[in-house]
Amino acid sequence: MSLSCPIPLKQYPTILLAHGGGGRLMHQLISQLFLATFGRPEQPQHDAAVLTLPGNRIAFTTDSYVVSPMFFPGGDIGILAVNGTVNDLAMAGARPLYLSLGFILEEGLPMETLWRVVQSIQAAAERAQVRIVTGDTKVVDRGKGDGLFINTAGVGIVEHGQTIAPNAVIPGDVVLLNGDVGRHGIAVMAQREGLAFESDITSDTAPVAQVVSQLLQAGIEIHCLRDATRGGLASTLNEIATAAQVHITLNETAIPVQADVQGACEILGLDPLYIANEGRFIAFVPAAQADAALAILQADQIAKGELPNASAIGRVTAAPSPLVTLTNRLGTDRILDVLSGEQLPRIC
Amino acid sequence: MSLSCPIPLKQYPTILLAHGGGGRLMHQLISQLFLATFGRPEQPQHDAAVLTLPGNRIAFTTDSYVVSPMFFPGGDIGILAVNGTVNDLAMAGARPLYLSLGFILEEGLPMETLWRVVQSIQAAAERAQVRIVTGDTKVVDRGKGDGLFINTAGVGIVEHGQTIAPNAVIPGDVVLLNGDVGRHGIAVMAQREGLAFESDITSDTAPVAQVVSQLLQAGIEIHCLRDATRGGLASTLNEIATAAQVHITLNETAIPVQADVQGACEILGLDPLYIANEGRFIAFVPAAQADAALAILQADQIAKGELPNASAIGRVTAAPSPLVTLTNRLGTDRILDVLSGEQLPRIC
Repeated sequence: MSLSCPIPLKQYPTILLAHGGGGRLMHQLISQLFLATFGRPEQPQHDAAVLTLPGNRIAFTTDSYVVSPMFFPGGDIGILAVNGTVNDLAMAGARPLYLSLGFILEEGLPMETLWRVVQSIQAAAERAQVRIVTGDTKVVDRGKGDGLFINTAGVGIVEHGQTIAPNAVIPGDVVLLNGDVGRHGIAVMAQREGLAFESDITSDTAPVAQVVSQLLQAGIEIHCLRDATRGGLASTLNEIATAAQVHITLNETAIPVQADVQGACEILGLDPLYIANEGRFIAFVPAAQADAALAILQADQIAKGELPNASAIGRVTAAPSPLVTLTNRLGTDRILDVLSGEQLPRIC
Repeated sequence: MSLSCPIPLKQYPTILLAHGGGGRLMHQLISQLFLATFGRPEQPQHDAAVLTLPGNRIAFTTDSYVVSPMFFPGGDIGILAVNGTVNDLAMAGARPLYLSLGFILEEGLPMETLWRVVQSIQAAAERAQVRIVTGDTKVVDRGKGDGLFINTAGVGIVEHGQTIAPNAVIPGDVVLLNGDVGRHGIAVMAQREGLAFESDITSDTAPVAQVVSQLLQAGIEIHCLRDATRGGLASTLNEIATAAQVHITLNETAIPVQADVQGACEILGLDPLYIANEGRFIAFVPAAQADAALAILQADQIAKGELPNASAIGRVTAAPSPLVTLTNRLGTDRILDVLSGEQLPRIC
């Protein structure tokens, strides 16, 4: 973040429509800001990157990022755009390799803001061990965008023979969660609304592909993986219950929620189980392998300097119709339903 | 375009923020509008598509589409989003296989508009023989977008051993162009500005992967391919001249421009050589193969019911520094320089 912007800011303090026009200014942006940061491809600038993969079974995914505000405690839109897409590949059990990067910039965006985001993207890509290999930049007129939107698509290689999918979940599976929930949504909302909580709540955004790879290498039979982003843990589990036609019973006391996140949720009338996370995922594994898998998730947390609070949070049973229920602290059950929308819009 | 919208329009006449929220409304949109149109993947809804490719050398590309207005003579934003990305893959000599589809919708967008675009995307994907296999939908608040933006990323398979790249262009190459230029930009601008020209100028948007595949199968040694989109023919050729460090000489009388496009350009003070096209590309081939390649380009036009006006428009010579010049009708030369931006913004 300490490098100074390679584009002369006195001359080009903000993004102009011409930066998306295919002419000299667009090429300056691509060459001085993007190629200089992400590395020059082997072949000179071309319409597509040509890549030789270490196999022919791939995962392919995309996400757009419109989070508001762009910068929040623990991350920014650029970090999210890398980790979110990397994690979608990881959830298919793939090893992420390459990302594409599409910017939709609003005329008038400070050039320095773009530069800050570009640096975040590169740092996040290095951490997640992926390369940005192709991209695109469009500029829309002032008032027709919101600073900047990012789309990333990702290609990863699938090196295992397992079927990791919602409908592979079966009765008897244990539900594992790799850490505490609710931080990302609260961090973004607090920043957006200017709320000051007593402690600093930071986003949990992080790449999870390496720990998924460790689970696979340890021979864990993974039935399903899913990151608990939009809609949070509750919506994610409902999708899986529906796809697998099963009943998922959660144990509320086993779901880690930071005390300050819990406090913020109580003040704001939000439920942490419906709040978006950006580094949390659930894994469905056979009961016999649950302890071994949990140990890997906790070791990953320890390696990152986190509290090892990954947990077995629930169980799958057969059911006549799909259902997710939560057994609370008092031992009573309630249904965790799907909301019609998100409690908090534009969280990713 | 004749099917009625699967989402009940009385209940949901427009896009709501909740349609991007990860809850019930988003799943209704995905399942009833997207999956019902693009076909259900083999695996149930997951974060990434898992695909087995017929080889391991791929092309990977992305583009965002922000064209304004969304609908114009000869096409719309959805058709462009398929053809543009398909053509970027084709320009690497790849056979396009799979697309991702990311929507950024503005709250308040008429549901019927989205439905119309979704149908266009599917029709264009069928024509280009690609499948939409993964996607994402985000909704931004009213006033923070412009109806809808689309990002597509594409994966194609490279089945030849040639190096098709700007720096593979060498002195002696002939420059081929697969048809007339200037139509797309003028069609969009006329629609945007409400200009009525005497004749209807329609966009040239079309997939070009099949004709590229025919060139390769015929054994043409293709040095470089490039579609003449943003910045038009002139900017595209300048990029290549710079990458290859050569002089490209064009023959103005050989470059096909429709009379009504020429007329519109003269009235508006625009140069058709700088106007974006969406179905036109240039191919650099050895002089000995130029006639054979041109015959393939013209046969493709005839098969589509077009006037076979694909042409050899120029030649590559050695030069001390990169240069593109145009020999005009009177036999005099002028330099075709790079503009700082686009003559017409938001053209794709």
